[in-house]
Amino acid sequence: MIRAGLVGATGYTGVETLRLLLAHPEVEPAVVTSRSGQGRAVADLFPWLRGHTRLAYAAPDSPELRRCDVVFFATPSGTAMEQAPALLDAGVRVIDISADFRIRDPAVWSRWYGRPHACPEVLARAVYGLPEQNRERIRDAQLVANPGCYPTAVILALLPLLAGGHCEHSDLIADAKSGVSGAGRKQELGNLFAEVADSFRAYAAGGHRHRPEISQALEQAAGGAVDLTFVPHLVPMVRGIHATVYARLRGEVDLQQVYEAFYRDEPCVDMLPAGSHPETRSVRGTNLCRIAVHRPDDGERAVVLSVIDNLVKGAAGQALQNMNLMFGFPETLGLAHSAVAP
Amino acid sequence: MIRAGLVGATGYTGVETLRLLLAHPEVEPAVVTSRSGQGRAVADLFPWLRGHTRLAYAAPDSPELRRCDVVFFATPSGTAMEQAPALLDAGVRVIDISADFRIRDPAVWSRWYGRPHACPEVLARAVYGLPEQNRERIRDAQLVANPGCYPTAVILALLPLLAGGHCEHSDLIADAKSGVSGAGRKQELGNLFAEVADSFRAYAAGGHRHRPEISQALEQAAGGAVDLTFVPHLVPMVRGIHATVYARLRGEVDLQQVYEAFYRDEPCVDMLPAGSHPETRSVRGTNLCRIAVHRPDDGERAVVLSVIDNLVKGAAGQALQNMNLMFGFPETLGLAHSAVAP
Amino acid sequence: MIRAGLVGATGYTGVETLRLLLAHPEVEPAVVTSRSGQGRAVADLFPWLRGHTRLAYAAPDSPELRRCDVVFFATPSGTAMEQAPALLDAGVRVIDISADFRIRDPAVWSRWYGRPHACPEVLARAVYGLPEQNRERIRDAQLVANPGCYPTAVILALLPLLAGGHCEHSDLIADAKSGVSGAGRKQELGNLFAEVADSFRAYAAGGHRHRPEISQALEQAAGGAVDLTFVPHLVPMVRGIHATVYARLRGEVDLQQVYEAFYRDEPCVDMLPAGSHPETRSVRGTNLCRIAVHRPDDGERAVVLSVIDNLVKGAAGQALQNMNLMFGFPETLGLAHSAVAP
Amino acid sequence: MIRAGLVGATGYTGVETLRLLLAHPEVEPAVVTSRSGQGRAVADLFPWLRGHTRLAYAAPDSPELRRCDVVFFATPSGTAMEQAPALLDAGVRVIDISADFRIRDPAVWSRWYGRPHACPEVLARAVYGLPEQNRERIRDAQLVANPGCYPTAVILALLPLLAGGHCEHSDLIADAKSGVSGAGRKQELGNLFAEVADSFRAYAAGGHRHRPEISQALEQAAGGAVDLTFVPHLVPMVRGIHATVYARLRGEVDLQQVYEAFYRDEPCVDMLPAGSHPETRSVRGTNLCRIAVHRPDDGERAVVLSVIDNLVKGAAGQALQNMNLMFGFPETLGLAHSAVAP
Repeated sequence: MIRAGLVGATGYTGVETLRLLLAHPEVEPAVVTSRSGQGRAVADLFPWLRGHTRLAYAAPDSPELRRCDVVFFATPSGTAMEQAPALLDAGVRVIDISADFRIRDPAVWSRWYGRPHACPEVLARAVYGLPEQNRERIRDAQLVANPGCYPTAVILALLPLLAGGHCEHSDLIADAKSGVSGAGRKQELGNLFAEVADSFRAYAAGGHRHRPEISQALEQAAGGAVDLTFVPHLVPMVRGIHATVYARLRGEVDLQQVYEAFYRDEPCVDMLPAGSHPETRSVRGTNLCRIAVHRPDDGERAVVLSVIDNLVKGAAGQALQNMNLMFGFPETLGLAHSAVAP
Repeated sequence: MIRAGLVGATGYTGVETLRLLLAHPEVEPAVVTSRSGQGRAVADLFPWLRGHTRLAYAAPDSPELRRCDVVFFATPSGTAMEQAPALLDAGVRVIDISADFRIRDPAVWSRWYGRPHACPEVLARAVYGLPEQNRERIRDAQLVANPGCYPTAVILALLPLLAGGHCEHSDLIADAKSGVSGAGRKQELGNLFAEVADSFRAYAAGGHRHRPEISQALEQAAGGAVDLTFVPHLVPMVRGIHATVYARLRGEVDLQQVYEAFYRDEPCVDMLPAGSHPETRSVRGTNLCRIAVHRPDDGERAVVLSVIDNLVKGAAGQALQNMNLMFGFPETLGLAHSAVAP
Repeated sequence: MIRAGLVGATGYTGVETLRLLLAHPEVEPAVVTSRSGQGRAVADLFPWLRGHTRLAYAAPDSPELRRCDVVFFATPSGTAMEQAPALLDAGVRVIDISADFRIRDPAVWSRWYGRPHACPEVLARAVYGLPEQNRERIRDAQLVANPGCYPTAVILALLPLLAGGHCEHSDLIADAKSGVSGAGRKQELGNLFAEVADSFRAYAAGGHRHRPEISQALEQAAGGAVDLTFVPHLVPMVRGIHATVYARLRGEVDLQQVYEAFYRDEPCVDMLPAGSHPETRSVRGTNLCRIAVHRPDDGERAVVLSVIDNLVKGAAGQALQNMNLMFGFPETLGLAHSAVAP
Repeated sequence: MIRAGLVGATGYTGVETLRLLLAHPEVEPAVVTSRSGQGRAVADLFPWLRGHTRLAYAAPDSPELRRCDVVFFATPSGTAMEQAPALLDAGVRVIDISADFRIRDPAVWSRWYGRPHACPEVLARAVYGLPEQNRERIRDAQLVANPGCYPTAVILALLPLLAGGHCEHSDLIADAKSGVSGAGRKQELGNLFAEVADSFRAYAAGGHRHRPEISQALEQAAGGAVDLTFVPHLVPMVRGIHATVYARLRGEVDLQQVYEAFYRDEPCVDMLPAGSHPETRSVRGTNLCRIAVHRPDDGERAVVLSVIDNLVKGAAGQALQNMNLMFGFPETLGLAHSAVAP
């Protein structure tokens, strides 16, 4: 039994992390903090957790955090890089679900996040927490940068092609669609029901922070530069990401076979049979990525369809998967339930 | 005042055509036919039309059709090619909203629609009813093949680039998303609320009938072969199509200026300011296509965002636009209202 | 042609009022004001109005308002009672879509709206703008208090019973359900897509401001006190109100006949055939109230089902209906279009 | 470890029952049958169960059913009463999630379900499976009639009032709202996304089969006749029922205290604090009923708000709760997870 802390637990990612921690048999959620919720019971703000926890929100700088084995950050960007170093110094292991430690080059980070990085020397020690790419390094990491939701869906869609050298590097397109919970619990006009429902739109088509994060992981897999176009869209649904990824194939390749082989032993990636079209609801509430591959009109272009729950495999669930690796638990402990559908 | 007939008016496209015809000041909807609805009042099946029409459904072979100036087909594929020739012989002008006359090559049509074409000689006389591409030929046409919903959104997104020679022909991708009404009023599992709501998925990723239709129009614009990858998706909303189109640019080009110039005088295309992201709801119920262009990370790739209402500019509204052209009415007569939003 | 002003045109009710005014053949929308939008073009904030207006927002105290024939208030409660008196003194006719002049007793108003009424003497001159109840007084009114959305649906459901003496006064229940646009364009947690979608809940079950407003109109119809229980609910849809109203019948009564007779000549109430269940979408975007009556298990209880579009017959459309009456235009001028459905 | 069979496992209730059985630590789902799905793998039809079961559908009359300890029926009405008697004779315990054994009087059953009851003598032995009302009898039952979804929500809302003699029996109203999954997986027009989304309506306002089922349970609690008006509505959401129940109070009563006391020891009913408004999403995927009570304007009328997941506490979950009681397992075994929200 380990003790876990959670910083910033009033957003959707935070409360989802707490929901999963509460159901994990080897973890005691010891402290949750929140600036806005301080002093209130978690179950008052999130009635669906009534009966599952008596925790109340502590102050953001609660000393309890240092007495945890692991601390999760589910905070807006900028907070983890301020608070994590002291925890690391105290021997606590940190899983940052925010974006502070995802991009290795502090100059690139700074360009996309609009401020200098607070601790470049700590950044250098962070491991990018995508188990399907970096499993062994995650086991030993003290600081894990949990991947973004879009990056998880897009990278998993492309890893088998790039790692196997089966596609051109200069011609990658990721057309990604997300449910509204991906925008968080922010009280902004663009998140209102009456603004989003029964409509569909793209956003940030000129450039989005997740593009450099994705490129970095793809370049690791490809062993060289890649040229990726990434356009995110907003779907009138609560949870779910669907990435439709286009790549130009090199030579002859049995796509279905390549993907099945690559993901055969991965517990959190489910390769669908040939001809399938994964639905986001099929992974709702789960830590799974479901993938299907197509080759439209038998041409040179591969189309990879990849779905995740943005709050689980795209955030909180992957964070627990990383925790399981870091503490030697079975990788899917607490994460093995099926989706709730319809 | 002209007399209009409507064959197959119990689907969503049919009843939307009727709704628009009823509000058109120069048209008298004289006869609507339906196999399944025969004998019933239109307003009994579609209560939102109560007070706007006393029409009842006639039999599919009603002799009234021959006494119309124009007949619209809003039927499943296969019906119009059976019924239209006799009407044309009787001097009636025909606007087919189904797919029977959209593809010029009967062999290609046959491959995608799974049966021989019933009247190739009539097919040769059909004009593809996209006013922005074929306006003058539509004016004189006796038979207009009204474009599909996806094709309308995708072709309008690419016309300025291809007509101006601004992009490669071999590297076109259209990632398209449609509301559920695009699948019609068919009582099928995949159209159920509990199957579609709060979820997102692609379909027909291996090849879709609208791809050859789009390619044909793009090749007309490009003056040569094009290579298009087209993947449709289902959005949990009722109306609307959003096409996200990717093209590789040739040389230097001011995208915004190219599009604004190309569509300056088009009454049914609204080019948005630089940096915009059109929402499908902004065209709900209207005959408009709204378009925005982007160049992610200032690279060589153009991203064109294009939205229509699949039942209006993607079907019934464009059919009336064609009718207006054919009968010398102002092009947007009966089609100039704003969207109902939110 | 009259000149209209609109105060507070950045909420959903305001922009819907503008949409309808722009399409009205006898009105020129001369000035729209907004504190938050001041200086910006309307069509920048509401892209669905692109091409329909070049208006920009003026300051809330724009002197142009005094040069209008009629001014609409689509403001939060408290604004109209501050601004209207000066306009009335200047001879402008005022239609207040907010709640400032709806409740005749200033003490009751004050109890529910949490402040003293700013101009009780003006309040005394206001006419409650429900044409089906007060048509003749509206024609001559200088100040019309446009009814709330719930009150419109509930009062119209009960008028025939109460006016005819067909039900007990002491046993009225209105269980009302509203789309989310009824809560306005406020950036609050409870209006977020991820909070509202795929869920359902009641609110204000202990007491809601619309209850005294409804009671006042019902008591006018009944000629005496009524006892009404009113509970509002939030539906995951954008527009629409559905009121389910329960009343205990007095003696024998042919419900269907009573309602058909009562509403026979009403242009904005559509009494459905026996056995019907109106859908909110059947009135989406229209100024209609559709009503059906039932008598479950042939008992003593009447169930009245009543639907409106909260932004049209429940707000902006009824405001124009009142304007038409006040200025001698045909009552449904600019309001006669059918719903956009599905 | 017991062996469970499931008849009719291709509807939403059936597949939800299977999902819960697969996660139950004391049950082995041994056989699932389906007429339409016979021979196909469950996970092919319901991809969200991939990785959780290798079961394929057997024929409806599979002899495996007789070798089970318990068999669930998730069939359309009429099937269980044909098949259950033979299973009961073979010593199998039966939990019928359909309506065949819910109404004790075969004449009443026959009137509402449109055919004679096939086995009135078996019907006489059935126990109505609402644990909060009949827990002890359920433990020993060989045949349990699992309550309907609406009945579960409405009865639980009224039990404390009726059992305590706190309300009039002649003046009960249940205004109930259900998500679309309650209508099942039937391919009917009224269940289509484009027919249901962004709209709201009542149905069966003249009389619904669940009314006599509810009345029967209420009369058991009240010890005499009750007069209930019940009107169901369709909400554009997938799962969830919200019942708003109105009752006239007798004398002074502390509503909050009455409910808290009544449900203090119930593991599947969660009484909310005073002033609350339960959301259906707060019980999504769970076997909980959440309840709040109000007294609008401090009058004589009580308003009880009650939410359940129609597929869980309203069907599959309650069936497992009954199974747990029948086989001596802890009552909430396999049913204790929290909701997935947002």
